[in-house]
Amino acid sequence: MPFDDQKGMAIAIEEAKKGYAEGGVPIGGALISEDGTILGRGHNMRFQKNSAILHGEMSTLESAGRLPGSAYKNCTMYTTLSPCNMCTGACLMYGIKRIVMGENETFVGGEDWIKEKGVELINLNNQECKDLMAKFIKERPHDWYEDIGE
Amino acid sequence: MPFDDQKGMAIAIEEAKKGYAEGGVPIGGALISEDGTILGRGHNMRFQKNSAILHGEMSTLESAGRLPGSAYKNCTMYTTLSPCNMCTGACLMYGIKRIVMGENETFVGGEDWIKEKGVELINLNNQECKDLMAKFIKERPHDWYEDIGE
Ligand SMILES: [Ca+2]
Ligand SMILES: [Ca+2]
Ligand SMILES: [Zn+2]
Ligand SMILES: [Zn+2]
Repeated sequence: MPFDDQKGMAIAIEEAKKGYAEGGVPIGGALISEDGTILGRGHNMRFQKNSAILHGEMSTLESAGRLPGSAYKNCTMYTTLSPCNMCTGACLMYGIKRIVMGENETFVGGEDWIKEKGVELINLNNQECKDLMAKFIKERPHDWYEDIGE
Repeated sequence: MPFDDQKGMAIAIEEAKKGYAEGGVPIGGALISEDGTILGRGHNMRFQKNSAILHGEMSTLESAGRLPGSAYKNCTMYTTLSPCNMCTGACLMYGIKRIVMGENETFVGGEDWIKEKGVELINLNNQECKDLMAKFIKERPHDWYEDIGE
């Protein structure tokens, strides 16, 4: 039985909430192999670490540590928001098999590129993910623009 | 007068050599604005920091720190090697204007995507960049495959 996407997303949402509680952008992720092993989990650390590269998915990949390329090939990247071009490119570089996102109403990232490369992309259209981002963007619009390079 | 691309690449090569001396993958980068200000410079830190995300261009972006999105728009990313999909996506997310690479004989990254997005891409076809990578890959082929997720 494949790993339950709702369970994967619940971990990503947990991470997003941790990020918000720390004063950060509430975007979280989890990298989970098809047998359900959580290889990595993390959240956006732009403000916590003054980082230009630690988006939620990047933190997740970093938390998984150095792995052989083969380890990524049967994995799903769960992310609370449509992955930006940077995070999309990272998933594609490692050959991650599936990407499951919480929502893409707040922001649409590299979805065309993901599909073009034949990677499965699923949108769970999750209200909690949308609410977290709506709250953050209302409170700190400029910090959100900075995070996506606008 | 625009900044001299050979000077930008010389900084990236200096970074690549530092990386090699540290026991790392010899790929370096520099982020330089059109008035010649060096906003960031860095090199691949996979082995030095056990990092899955610190490719040369990512280290360079991280060394530039948190910047407003506008800061990237008139910048060139110098990189000693054709940028992989992750590093390509990062440059595109930030709206970097030009990418100048040392070579693309060793590896071809997200070049199609760069061109598709209308970002200027220049190949300096630099022999020193090729020699650095040839030496590393001969010495440590598996470490190279790991770095590109293969
Ligand atoms: Ca993100
Ligand atoms: Ca690289
Ligand atoms: Zn991202
Ligand atoms: Zn790269």
